[in-house]
Amino acid sequence: MLVLLTNDDGIFSAGLRAIALSLSQIARVIVIAPERQQSATGHAITLHKPLRMERVDLDGAIEAYASNGTPADCVILGTVSDLPKPDIVVSGINAGANLGEEVLYSGTVSAAMEAALQGLPSIAISVAAYSDVLYDGAAVFARHLVEGLYLERPLPADTFLNVNVPNKPADQLLPPKLTRLGRRKYTNVLSKRLDPRGRPYYWFSGAPVESEGGEGTDITAVSTGHISVTPIHFDLTGDMTDARLPGFVEGLRFR
Amino acid sequence: MLVLLTNDDGIFSAGLRAIALSLSQIARVIVIAPERQQSATGHAITLHKPLRMERVDLDGAIEAYASNGTPADCVILGTVSDLPKPDIVVSGINAGANLGEEVLYSGTVSAAMEAALQGLPSIAISVAAYSDVLYDGAAVFARHLVEGLYLERPLPADTFLNVNVPNKPADQLLPPKLTRLGRRKYTNVLSKRLDPRGRPYYWFSGAPVESEGGEGTDITAVSTGHISVTPIHFDLTGDMTDARLPGFVEGLRFR
Repeated sequence: MLVLLTNDDGIFSAGLRAIALSLSQIARVIVIAPERQQSATGHAITLHKPLRMERVDLDGAIEAYASNGTPADCVILGTVSDLPKPDIVVSGINAGANLGEEVLYSGTVSAAMEAALQGLPSIAISVAAYSDVLYDGAAVFARHLVEGLYLERPLPADTFLNVNVPNKPADQLLPPKLTRLGRRKYTNVLSKRLDPRGRPYYWFSGAPVESEGGEGTDITAVSTGHISVTPIHFDLTGDMTDARLPGFVEGLRFR
Repeated sequence: MLVLLTNDDGIFSAGLRAIALSLSQIARVIVIAPERQQSATGHAITLHKPLRMERVDLDGAIEAYASNGTPADCVILGTVSDLPKPDIVVSGINAGANLGEEVLYSGTVSAAMEAALQGLPSIAISVAAYSDVLYDGAAVFARHLVEGLYLERPLPADTFLNVNVPNKPADQLLPPKLTRLGRRKYTNVLSKRLDPRGRPYYWFSGAPVESEGGEGTDITAVSTGHISVTPIHFDLTGDMTDARLPGFVEGLRFR
């Protein structure tokens, strides 16, 4: 089995190294990951500048390349360059959960989505903490999950898995639950400052203000100590059964 | 009615100017758009550098700001800065269709999605051509659509509209159709070159190899000359009724 591994925290992040070493026990691992932190890049693809991919040393035994591209770029590089074609694509381990609508912004998740678009089985995996992150449990779980995906092929078409692991020692993790995406509301906060020449500039910040956990969501699973496994698809077609829309659209003037 | 207008082709693109002038007939328009071309940025949000937003002159009467951010950044800037809160967010007119899975990569669509995440009615609108683009029909249709959205509020919760317009003179456009997203397969082509120092670099290219049109898709609507209007949601939860997944996930070893 050949695993293509990427992330959005950058190739020298501790989470990537932890999962690379764990997956190496069951598979050949090729790492192609951004040379630096790429959080909140969404599903960006680099069209306007040339991409680089340079061999780097990552714990000796693991074949690894750093790229100036996004996580989705790294997946494309790994599937269309001269490297052998992967059986499975893994993205992570991210420091910080990717729950609810966070999947829309997440570089970690976008890499797994790019793989799924290409018809490859894939997972994104994150630990729910930004500091003092405990990767061991997630690294072990990822190994079991990747092995299961390879042997059992349980995924429906056009679907990948988004995994979130509570930040606990491995022996305190509770069993995995199949979940749906919850909702998180964010406050978008804009900090306005003046540069030395008196011109304004802005920093975004923001924090979740409320989480719609609710039965069966990824948010609730992680907050109660369970590993969350959410199937993700990429057909964004909305509700077409809503009675108002067809009449509204057909009734629109168009000239 | 106050319309916040953005795009991903950059603030000085012809498509943005065409729709700004058209919408100005029925609403106050504030433009906040990227200072340069941002295609394929996906749903990226800028967290790691300060954002700028500078007043620029755009056809005199229209209040316009250029930003160094992404299309989604522009929407956040327009809703949390000191500017008045918009009633509707419009993204476009993009030069080039955004059909099928292209919505996942599209900066144009991501701006409308960011607005919908914030609970604002929104549309993304594109014309299906990269050169010799005819914006007039799309600009007129957008005006009728925005007016209808404002007056009738027909959208289901957490839903926005993705509009694609054939590249035809306005009087040759066929009536709007409510559509679902089709599928396009792309060839990802990687062009490997050597820089003057002999080091490799890569360019992505790629083209649709097949389009799954089929009845009711956006692809078929546009290819038959109709304006396509697709409801887009952002709950990416996949198929949870597939019988294999629950057993697979529950059976996974996790320590």
